[in-house]
Amino acid sequence: MDRSFMEQAIRLSIENVDANNGGPFGAVIVKNDEIISHGTNHVAEAGDPTAHAEIIAIRAACKKLNTYNLQGCEIYCSCEPCPMCLGAIYWARIDRIWFAATREDAAGYQFDDRFIYEEVSKPYSERKLETRQLMREKALEAFRLWEQSDNKEPY
Amino acid sequence: MDRSFMEQAIRLSIENVDANNGGPFGAVIVKNDEIISHGTNHVAEAGDPTAHAEIIAIRAACKKLNTYNLQGCEIYCSCEPCPMCLGAIYWARIDRIWFAATREDAAGYQFDDRFIYEEVSKPYSERKLETRQLMREKALEAFRLWEQSDNKEPY
Repeated sequence: MDRSFMEQAIRLSIENVDANNGGPFGAVIVKNDEIISHGTNHVAEAGDPTAHAEIIAIRAACKKLNTYNLQGCEIYCSCEPCPMCLGAIYWARIDRIWFAATREDAAGYQFDDRFIYEEVSKPYSERKLETRQLMREKALEAFRLWEQSDNKEPY
Repeated sequence: MDRSFMEQAIRLSIENVDANNGGPFGAVIVKNDEIISHGTNHVAEAGDPTAHAEIIAIRAACKKLNTYNLQGCEIYCSCEPCPMCLGAIYWARIDRIWFAATREDAAGYQFDDRFIYEEVSKPYSERKLETRQLMREKALEAFRLWEQSDNKEPY
């Protein structure tokens, strides 16, 4: 089963290049041994830098299941998820990740996945992307208000 | 100016709790000293785990400017972006990040930002989220096809 799901993710990644939607990336999300959603990279086609295969597949699965919690699901990615997509997979509470190509493979074709992994792992003051902090005290008001809210849902 | 933009991001984060859309997070994107888009956390309201303030603001800015490249823009975040949002900021080529509260502050209110930073920084075999690799060779086909494509755009 695992290989068959990965075959589908890879097939999508290949078709995506032919369709000229964006980069060579595909993903499928599986629940109870059935594919419930899929995605391919649509950055170029949609003009949206967040339109990676995994993000699209996660959003589609959540819409289908009417929840932001994908516990009980697994994701098959034709390439190792980038930090953006890996973060999304954590937030979605997906149970398991399967991937085929690596961030190194992607780097070999000028994709920034490996570079972004390096950057995310550094303290912000050491990153290439300039980052500054200000007004922390004022921002804490929102958290205090959240804590007092009756409607807050943990996620 | 910087403080005024951050004040807006923080104001949005506070209003978002009152509106019951999701967590206490707000972001604005600025180009040429003007706010071109904004976002707040809509995870709960939209049932979408990727609906963080920064992701929403990035998608809105790209739609407005009709590009997936936000070079020349800065983002003001009421809280340090999580790895998902930080990855999106890199992919969008935003020039500079300003943030107020920290991942530690968020962790103090049960948000997973710090945990996800720790996980993303580890080799996949050491993460709490089970991750397995298979079928790398087959997945490389998509990259080779991409390299031969006339239509590929680097991003």
